[in-house]
Amino acid sequence: MQTKAYGAQKAKAPLAPIAIERREPGPKDVALDILFCGVCHSDLHTARGEWPGILYPCVPGHEIIGRVTKTGKDVKSFKEGDIVGVGCMVESCRTCEPCQHDLEQYCEGPNGFTGTYNGAAKGGLPNTFGGYSKHIVVDEHFVLRIRHKEHQFAAAAPLLCAGITTWSPLKHWKIGPGQKVGIIGIGGLGHMGVKLAHALGAHVVAFTTSPSKKSAALELGADEVVVSKNRDEMNAHAGSFNFILDTVAASHDLDAFTRLLKRDGALVLVGVPEDPHPSPSVGTLIFGRKSIGGSLIGGIAETQEMLDFCAERDITCDIEMIAMADIDNAYDRQLKSDVKYRFVIDMATLT
Amino acid sequence: MQTKAYGAQKAKAPLAPIAIERREPGPKDVALDILFCGVCHSDLHTARGEWPGILYPCVPGHEIIGRVTKTGKDVKSFKEGDIVGVGCMVESCRTCEPCQHDLEQYCEGPNGFTGTYNGAAKGGLPNTFGGYSKHIVVDEHFVLRIRHKEHQFAAAAPLLCAGITTWSPLKHWKIGPGQKVGIIGIGGLGHMGVKLAHALGAHVVAFTTSPSKKSAALELGADEVVVSKNRDEMNAHAGSFNFILDTVAASHDLDAFTRLLKRDGALVLVGVPEDPHPSPSVGTLIFGRKSIGGSLIGGIAETQEMLDFCAERDITCDIEMIAMADIDNAYDRQLKSDVKYRFVIDMATLT
Repeated sequence: MQTKAYGAQKAKAPLAPIAIERREPGPKDVALDILFCGVCHSDLHTARGEWPGILYPCVPGHEIIGRVTKTGKDVKSFKEGDIVGVGCMVESCRTCEPCQHDLEQYCEGPNGFTGTYNGAAKGGLPNTFGGYSKHIVVDEHFVLRIRHKEHQFAAAAPLLCAGITTWSPLKHWKIGPGQKVGIIGIGGLGHMGVKLAHALGAHVVAFTTSPSKKSAALELGADEVVVSKNRDEMNAHAGSFNFILDTVAASHDLDAFTRLLKRDGALVLVGVPEDPHPSPSVGTLIFGRKSIGGSLIGGIAETQEMLDFCAERDITCDIEMIAMADIDNAYDRQLKSDVKYRFVIDMATLT
Repeated sequence: MQTKAYGAQKAKAPLAPIAIERREPGPKDVALDILFCGVCHSDLHTARGEWPGILYPCVPGHEIIGRVTKTGKDVKSFKEGDIVGVGCMVESCRTCEPCQHDLEQYCEGPNGFTGTYNGAAKGGLPNTFGGYSKHIVVDEHFVLRIRHKEHQFAAAAPLLCAGITTWSPLKHWKIGPGQKVGIIGIGGLGHMGVKLAHALGAHVVAFTTSPSKKSAALELGADEVVVSKNRDEMNAHAGSFNFILDTVAASHDLDAFTRLLKRDGALVLVGVPEDPHPSPSVGTLIFGRKSIGGSLIGGIAETQEMLDFCAERDITCDIEMIAMADIDNAYDRQLKSDVKYRFVIDMATLT
């Protein structure tokens, strides 16, 4: 089955229309028409060949909202017309210990989980193709129910990656009322981190290098905003945080933030910097039993939990809608952090 | 009250006999004659002025076993003749949140806890003087009961620092049966890490750079020994550890060990390297929700728990007894790791 898509034929080529194959829906598959697709930094790195192991042609997109058009005979949870989401994963081994515990993102099968794009496709097809397309076929296990209102569908799309990437560590580290939580970086991920930590009842401090982002961060739900380059502002928070979520993928000084943690506090990173961070101070960790950890997206059950939590509270992402043909321009703006806070592609513009 | 001691008058001077002042025991104080004192790497760094902020004269020693000679009128837990221990701390603020939770090592009082040496002394005296002396006076809160048999007293001394430094993280990270635990480095701390993790019921893998230490590590209680420079041996353990305790204070590659952790595993450091470790891979942490943490000695209640656990199971340190006058030679041997696994000074030799 052919479908229209937008992708890169090779690393240095701009994205352009291409036709791709989707498999015929099997008994457990859900087929959907894609309505909206969020634009993640991973899309850019992948499409432009900045990461190793990219397979071409490449069709990015893993923040997908669509409408079900067809379901396989064994599909129980979805029917034609349902509004659904697909995030970063479309398959995993289903049998390893993490998969059995709803942690498909840490799948220990031979190749780990299958990415929504640039993964190993089923049915004799080449690599998986993502959401910059009109249509996709996904096993129902990896399809999420979207309970947001219709006018929120586009703004719900980035919950599938930016949302779950910040939600999962907040939940794993048991963030809630009475805790002081820091969110470093007010971008696609960070703005969701602020909203979600606030909704979970924590006292939220947003860290930014841009004084100009202060009022915006407060509007997102931050109780306080700290300009991380201001030493006095930083020192005022020394030893006071239970948890700090670091959404900044660029190399930066981690000690400035581990110093702000209380005893037993954790600094958790969700971005891999191109150049390593300066080596963190071991003494700061030891004198406070602190830790630096990492966290990767989130499991499917947890993603559904987050989507339902957000739908009940009318939480969505702050987005700027673009047409499919504007994607390379959007990437360029993304590189300059010139977006509040996530681009979402209106897939009706792919004709 | 004057007492004989052995200390450094300045950074570059060899240790030599000196007379020091001890305070008169107050109502809550316990006075003891020191029988044995273990030799910690910190002693060496302090005595030789390799760390900043060393106060001279300096009398090291914080692995102290002694016999009570006198108790203040309000002392309830100890009486003359009792065999007791004193570890790395002799005071803390007692009122901060960590102190109230038996975590005096993380005291948030104005100056943190008071070190057994090089800390702020009470009663108008200069800095605190440690266990390389005949006699010491300590508030009963910081005095531990020793339930080991008499012939074990000397070998129990290093439990007060090497023992608790490894015990505390093992307990905090809930190590027990069914878990696979790594111990990096088979020295003063590491050999106790192996013994304690084994006694707690874990499957213990000792990591060493010296193939010659293999049989000794197995005798200490390791189930397996891995030569960390052997890539094949390391790869065979990839993704399999719940917890790895790193006792090596020299700069080394942490990624080699975070790669061996399972999902949600922790690498916990107890030594501060002089030169920083190479910056650890963030990707390895993210793709497995792993963490790198630190841990500092242990609280007083926890130290008593560890001492009792060890006494019940006849667990002591493997030691080499030395005379007080041999201390500089012992330091030199310590620097070459030429000790199995801890020097203990027989304080009867200080005359």
